Amino acid sequence: MNKVILLKKRPVGRPTLHDFQFSSAAIPVPPAGKVLLKALYVSVDPYLRGRMNDSKSYVSSFEIGKPMQSGTIAQVVDSKHAEFRKGDYVSGNLEWKEYQVSNGDGLAKVDGKVSPLSSYLGVLGMTGLTAYLGLTEIGIPKAGETIVVSGAAGAVGTVVGQVGKITGCLVVGITGTDEKAALLKSKFKFDDAINYKTSHNLKEAIRIACPEGVDIYFDNVGGEISDAVLSNINKHARLPVCGAISQYNDSKISSGPRLQPILLTKSATMRGFIVSDFSAKFPAAFKQLASWLKEGKLTYAETIVEGFENIPQAFIDLFDGKNKGKMIVKI
Amino acid sequence: MNKVILLKKRPVGRPTLHDFQFSSAAIPVPPAGKVLLKALYVSVDPYLRGRMNDSKSYVSSFEIGKPMQSGTIAQVVDSKHAEFRKGDYVSGNLEWKEYQVSNGDGLAKVDGKVSPLSSYLGVLGMTGLTAYLGLTEIGIPKAGETIVVSGAAGAVGTVVGQVGKITGCLVVGITGTDEKAALLKSKFKFDDAINYKTSHNLKEAIRIACPEGVDIYFDNVGGEISDAVLSNINKHARLPVCGAISQYNDSKISSGPRLQPILLTKSATMRGFIVSDFSAKFPAAFKQLASWLKEGKLTYAETIVEGFENIPQAFIDLFDGKNKGKMIVKI
Repeated sequence: MNKVILLKKRPVGRPTLHDFQFSSAAIPVPPAGKVLLKALYVSVDPYLRGRMNDSKSYVSSFEIGKPMQSGTIAQVVDSKHAEFRKGDYVSGNLEWKEYQVSNGDGLAKVDGKVSPLSSYLGVLGMTGLTAYLGLTEIGIPKAGETIVVSGAAGAVGTVVGQVGKITGCLVVGITGTDEKAALLKSKFKFDDAINYKTSHNLKEAIRIACPEGVDIYFDNVGGEISDAVLSNINKHARLPVCGAISQYNDSKISSGPRLQPILLTKSATMRGFIVSDFSAKFPAAFKQLASWLKEGKLTYAETIVEGFENIPQAFIDLFDGKNKGKMIVKI
Repeated sequence: MNKVILLKKRPVGRPTLHDFQFSSAAIPVPPAGKVLLKALYVSVDPYLRGRMNDSKSYVSSFEIGKPMQSGTIAQVVDSKHAEFRKGDYVSGNLEWKEYQVSNGDGLAKVDGKVSPLSSYLGVLGMTGLTAYLGLTEIGIPKAGETIVVSGAAGAVGTVVGQVGKITGCLVVGITGTDEKAALLKSKFKFDDAINYKTSHNLKEAIRIACPEGVDIYFDNVGGEISDAVLSNINKHARLPVCGAISQYNDSKISSGPRLQPILLTKSATMRGFIVSDFSAKFPAAFKQLASWLKEGKLTYAETIVEGFENIPQAFIDLFDGKNKGKMIVKI
């Protein structure tokens, strides 16, 4: 049998298990020109929450009654496609199915001997590229500058901080537990890390951690954490907006202090992006990340949950920050 | 006697005449290496409001008991400086005094035979450069795109719209009276103009005026007008933030819908600036504006108030939108 997870209904606010439907189907047989894939690792990512809404988002909405989709590492178990052989490992944006047929579009072969298969969903995959390209193309860090990253212990944040350190910047992470803050300093070599949940005055804590002010704020969360960082930015600051996890479950856009006055007085640039904005730069970025990884300059963390049926819960747990680094479900 | 206008106290909210002090002094005699200047035209500009606060702004604060300052066209009436002769006309950031001594720093000679003297405070001065450089360097307009500009009938807005038309864009202005809206369409060739004060649903009015959505929003005002424009932006929109006149008199930053979610979903860029960010490009920008002016491709409007003692009231009137184009006081 072939297990499948469908979108049952659109979440109102925070997603729950009731928004998903577990189903089953026969294992398909690939026709000519196609491959049969078996999912090995499924990525869950905060941005998927936007795709569960009916509203226009920056990626198209999931349909009710249809399978959910996300980044997946799969193995080719049967091939009638000239470019893929049985046993090949591939990465692609696949449906939440144990087995599925693909015509090969959007699949990229990955090599578990170069780096563990799961890393192609994280540091060498979408989140690594997002971190590297958002920081280098929008943040444009220079040695000696100060970078603050929110959601710092997540899959994107951990790479942002390390790339910042490689560049010669002072790097401060904002995260939600003392354990994660300690990990950022020990494993990921951040200069400092702030637990926003226990900080009595986040604005002041950032000011102290960033004695020269903030040149780059890599924003994964939005909301009040970002307000606190913005009050510490320097002239000509750059603010890549990568995510807004604090806002994803809001049914309407929340209010906060208007940003135009501070962007104006600081001649600062705030730019939203999705990694595909920089798709032309994927090969060079991948090569750089893989090279740093091999040289030991870059490391990563994964939170691996086991079992196909646990994909929805792993996704929901992202909104509680239960992951350290990349959240991945091993099938 | 030499009339002088000082900052008497820092305004709370909207400035009033009581915030200024009229004073007088002897007409100075220039020592060796200096010139004596007589003010002819004094510029009043919304950004001066920020300099009246004690808070850090993007330009330094005026001091209480000291003269106010702004862009001024003056004539050299006595010179002991090698580079200036009696009779020369100059532009500079001068004190609100009928007569003052200068060492020549920051003074630029202007030629009333090339363009009327007052135009060096507007279309060929700071506001023209602000419009041209903010639009071309941050907005980066391409033929066929749609530009919305707020504060459209002001000194900056009228130039933004015309440069947009020269570039081949659809240009829509937002302004505060029907008379100004009509002027934008007739004199400045805007494709459309919206009176935000009589519009029952500004967001919808902008949607109708911009059938292809908004690619560039040149923001002079901030606040709810900008909220309405932002809900109509296209993917990869560019948003130069030039001013926030609606917010300048607020004693604290007001709240509004958070911007990060829309910047994120639209991969949009919002960038605050001050014209001096682009000072390396002043000569080329001046040349382009002067050339368009000479060819008749660019026109301008001025609201000229007469009398040195009316400088403060002319400044205050900016916040009621009493100017069309550049507000200037003729001495």
